[in-house]
This record gives sequence, C-alpha cells and structure tokens, in this order.
Amino acid sequence: MSLLVVGTVAFDAIETPFGKTDKIIGGAATYASLAASYFHKKINLVSVVGDDFPQETIRQLNSHGINTDGLQIKKNEKSFFWSGKYHNDMNSRDTLATELNVLMTFDPIIPEAYQNCSFLMLGNLMPAIQIKVMERMKTRPKLIVMDTMNFWMDTAMGDLRKAISMVDVLTINDAEARQLSGEYSLVKAAQTILEMGPKYLIIKKGEHGALLFNSEQVFFAPALPLEDVFDPTGAGDTFAGGFIGFLARTKDVSFENMKRGIIFGSAMASFCVEKFGTERIIELSQEEVDERVQEFVDLVQFDITLV
Amino acid sequence: MSLLVVGTVAFDAIETPFGKTDKIIGGAATYASLAASYFHKKINLVSVVGDDFPQETIRQLNSHGINTDGLQIKKNEKSFFWSGKYHNDMNSRDTLATELNVLMTFDPIIPEAYQNCSFLMLGNLMPAIQIKVMERMKTRPKLIVMDTMNFWMDTAMGDLRKAISMVDVLTINDAEARQLSGEYSLVKAAQTILEMGPKYLIIKKGEHGALLFNSEQVFFAPALPLEDVFDPTGAGDTFAGGFIGFLARTKDVSFENMKRGIIFGSAMASFCVEKFGTERIIELSQEEVDERVQEFVDLVQFDITLV
Repeated sequence: MSLLVVGTVAFDAIETPFGKTDKIIGGAATYASLAASYFHKKINLVSVVGDDFPQETIRQLNSHGINTDGLQIKKNEKSFFWSGKYHNDMNSRDTLATELNVLMTFDPIIPEAYQNCSFLMLGNLMPAIQIKVMERMKTRPKLIVMDTMNFWMDTAMGDLRKAISMVDVLTINDAEARQLSGEYSLVKAAQTILEMGPKYLIIKKGEHGALLFNSEQVFFAPALPLEDVFDPTGAGDTFAGGFIGFLARTKDVSFENMKRGIIFGSAMASFCVEKFGTERIIELSQEEVDERVQEFVDLVQFDITLV
Repeated sequence: MSLLVVGTVAFDAIETPFGKTDKIIGGAATYASLAASYFHKKINLVSVVGDDFPQETIRQLNSHGINTDGLQIKKNEKSFFWSGKYHNDMNSRDTLATELNVLMTFDPIIPEAYQNCSFLMLGNLMPAIQIKVMERMKTRPKLIVMDTMNFWMDTAMGDLRKAISMVDVLTINDAEARQLSGEYSLVKAAQTILEMGPKYLIIKKGEHGALLFNSEQVFFAPALPLEDVFDPTGAGDTFAGGFIGFLARTKDVSFENMKRGIIFGSAMASFCVEKFGTERIIELSQEEVDERVQEFVDLVQFDITLV
C-alpha cells in the first residue's frame, strides 16, 4: 500500500515575531512526506528542485523512508523559493517573494515503480499539474487527497474545479472554503463544495482546529492549545501528511478512521509550529508522537451517557 | 442543592444581518437561569427591573422553576436597556445604547430563603455588586461561577481583581483573557489568570468553542457548526447557565464533570443563537436538549487506542 506525495520541495525564508530565518528547507511535499513518514514507510515523492538543493536534505528524506527517485533535479536551475512575514497574531502573513524557478516548467513524471499506489497526496500546486498527475496514474489510487489555496481560485478556477471533481478528499482553510463556495457559514460552504465532487472536505481553521465533512456527517478536531506558535509555515501540509500517512498505514478509508487520521494529522501539525520550518518534525520519536496524540485525547474526550 | 443566579434582567434591542427587533427580553440572569432550568429546578434569582417589565415574562420564568422573590421591581423606574448591532461576521458588534436605569442604584438583597445555596452564578455586573453578593452569603456556596467583561477591566480593575480572587470558576472570552492577563497565548493567559485566584477558567471563543483550564489540565469543547447564527446575544450567559445548571443537578464539581457541564452549556448556547433573544431557549423540550448533546458527542468523539 504505497503512498505517493506530489508537491513542492523548496526553499523558504520566514519572518515571525520570534525571529527570522535565512533560506531553509520548505515545500508542501517536504512537510507532507516527512509527517507521513511517522506512520508509513513506503512513501514515494514526485517533485522538482534545482541543483542548488542540498544533497544532505535528500538523504534526510531517504532516511525517513521517502523514496526520491521521482524528485527531478534540474541542472543549472534554481529551486522554488518563497519568503513571507507573519503578523503578530500568526493568522495572517505577507508574501515577500515568490520565485517559481524550476516550478515554471515542472512536468510531473511518475516513475513506473510509483504506479499502482494506493494513496495519493496532491500538495498545493498549479491545478493543471495536479490534474496531470491524476491522469498519469494507470490505476486510480484508493484515496486521493488534494490541498489547494486561494491563489488558484483567483487565477485558475476552471482547472481547479476540474481537479476538485477528481479527488476524494479536499483540504482547504476556512477563508478558502468561503471563497470557493460563496457561503459564509462553513456548514453551507461544505455542502456546496461537496457538490463539486469530493466525497470528503477538510476545512482547516489553524489555531481553531479542523472540520471533516461528508454529505451526512461532521467531525471536529481542535488544535492543541500551545504556549507559543513559533512558525505556522507548513502546518497545513504537515497535517495533511499525517492524515494520509495514518490512513495508508491502517488501510482504512472509512469516516471513523478519517477522524483518527485528523487527530494524528493535528498532532503532527502541533509539532510543526513549535520550531522554524521542518526543524521539529524531522527529529521526532515515536514516543513523542504517541504522547502528543494522547494530549489530544485528553483535551477533547468526555464521558456523557444520555438516558 | 439550590442554585442562585444574580445578574441583569433587562430589555434588549438587537440588529443582526438577519433582521432587527424592538425591545425584547434580555439580560444575563434571564439567559443563565432559563438555560439552567433545563437541568435543575431549584433556581433562585436576584436582580432588579422597573415597573415597565412585563409580568408575563416573570410568570414564564416561574413556570421554568425559577423563583423570582429576589427580583426587585422598582416603582416608577425603568428596566436596564441595551441596544446593539452585529457586524456581518457576527463576531463583533457596536453598542447603540446603554441605559442603566434601575441598575444605577442596584443593591443585591439576598432573601433569607436564598441563603445556604450550593451553587452561585454571578452574571456580568459591576464587580462591586458581585463582591457584595458573595459577602452577603452567610455560608460560602460550594461553587461560585462568575462572568465578566472587558468594560470592567477598563473601568474597575481593582474591584474586578478582588471579585475574581473570590470565585471558583471565571468565564470570559478570548479577547478578555488576553486583556486581563497581558498574554496573547491563551495557554499563558490561563496560567496568569489562574494565579489571580480562581481554580478554574473557562475561555469562551464563540464559534470556535470553549476551553476549560485548571492549573494542570485543559479541556476543549467546540461550538456546533451551524448553518446560520441568527443572533449571538446571550450565548455566553446561556452557556454559563447550562454549565452551572448541569453541575447543580449532578452535585459534582470535579474537572471530569465540568467537562460534561461545558458540553451541556455549549449545547444550550447553540440553541440560543438560532433565534432572536430568548425565543429559542424558552421553548425547548428535553428531547431537543438530549439530541443536541448527542450531536456534540458525535462531533468530537473518536476512538484511538495507543499501543
């Protein structure tokens, strides 16, 4: 039951109220595959970087059980670079720089050995590329999870609607759910978006947790109340990676098991924000992950018996 | 095990994106005692109104099992009146009018028959009055829950700090927790506020749910995702009333039982916002309450066993 993760592998430069970084490792597929690696060991990566990307990082991914044969390394080109500055509340940010570089011509080639994967995670990317990946799979994966963002709603809505119609689970944040649906109420927004094709919708609310919807049920998972959120970059990708990694390990795509997946994803995201970039999620022990999941259990579980 | 509710009984005029009302019945003690009445039948009310207040409403309170012997009716005076207009997101509002009227000279007289109450709910009021109520109790109630608001942080911080130091459970919203503590992180804010005296702190986050803290534990309950929030007025008071009403019924003030109380309080608040004013919470059946609580159970419960 292999898991294919497609998305960006990139450099970020981040400024938060707690400090700023030089170029550090980032990218949706980096966060998602690292998070998934704590649950599942057959992870295949499709992405593209320039030859400025450190071999050391690729070795780190490999040591996490992530196969990087599908990571294209473009000679004499530069990796995707994003730079942003978070506001004091950490809920909003300004983009300072976006250098697409290798992404401008990215053709997502799926190695033959990556075919027949059961789980596909499409990290945020141009929707046309996400569609191309799905069209290139010789057999449809058991579960396709796709992340996207408001930028594509503004610039490529046709492709985005097509991509959304092809997936099983869409993950977006609350503002994006409102934009995509035209509904302010998240319950109404979910109904509208589920009519666009996906069977499940996850609405990410950052520090306010996440909602999972299908056409009949809803589940809510909180974010862990943390003393400090140090750097939110990658939290959504880490959440999605933990979610699909857990599903791939358990081979169960029922709503009940997705609830568990959301708790595991939330636990991984809560680590992600504790340090800059991937620093925290690259070094976790299984004990830390289990303890953190237990904190979520303790945070929300109660015992009510209605008579 | 009687429950004493002290707070305003008043008129409100409310404008939301869904419509506006003339003068309707409002007030923290009205909402709190009505919500509590679904769980507990020995409720005593201390408040003050003018002789403009409708006898019919007082009879409605009585029919909910609320004793109004402690409701002072001032001849030739007018009841407290508040008017406000909610913004489109329902999370912020402008106060259009505040007419204190009878509140200006309110002396909270505790009828002898109300003494020896086990549970005391102090709705939002001038902190000096909240202190006076506590000082007038001949025996300290088993549990004192107090609500307050930012206005008193701005105008009566000395009295407010004294009142807070005397209670068991303080309920405030997230912005107020940040203001009171000077901490942005709600975890740090909670630690700071618990050092001011209360053993428990409930931080209300409106549509984002509520957090319960003691010095060692934290519990989170979501708000129910609703299609529409019609009118948020009184939701916090309804929450507090449901919370303390449930505790009074079960006579158990442990952290575990407070978790249940928060779920029952959240369920009551989710009804409150469905219609203007007290319209929805005055007419509920026990079946509706139980069904709503079950929706909360379904919303957050998951089954994870860590090995």
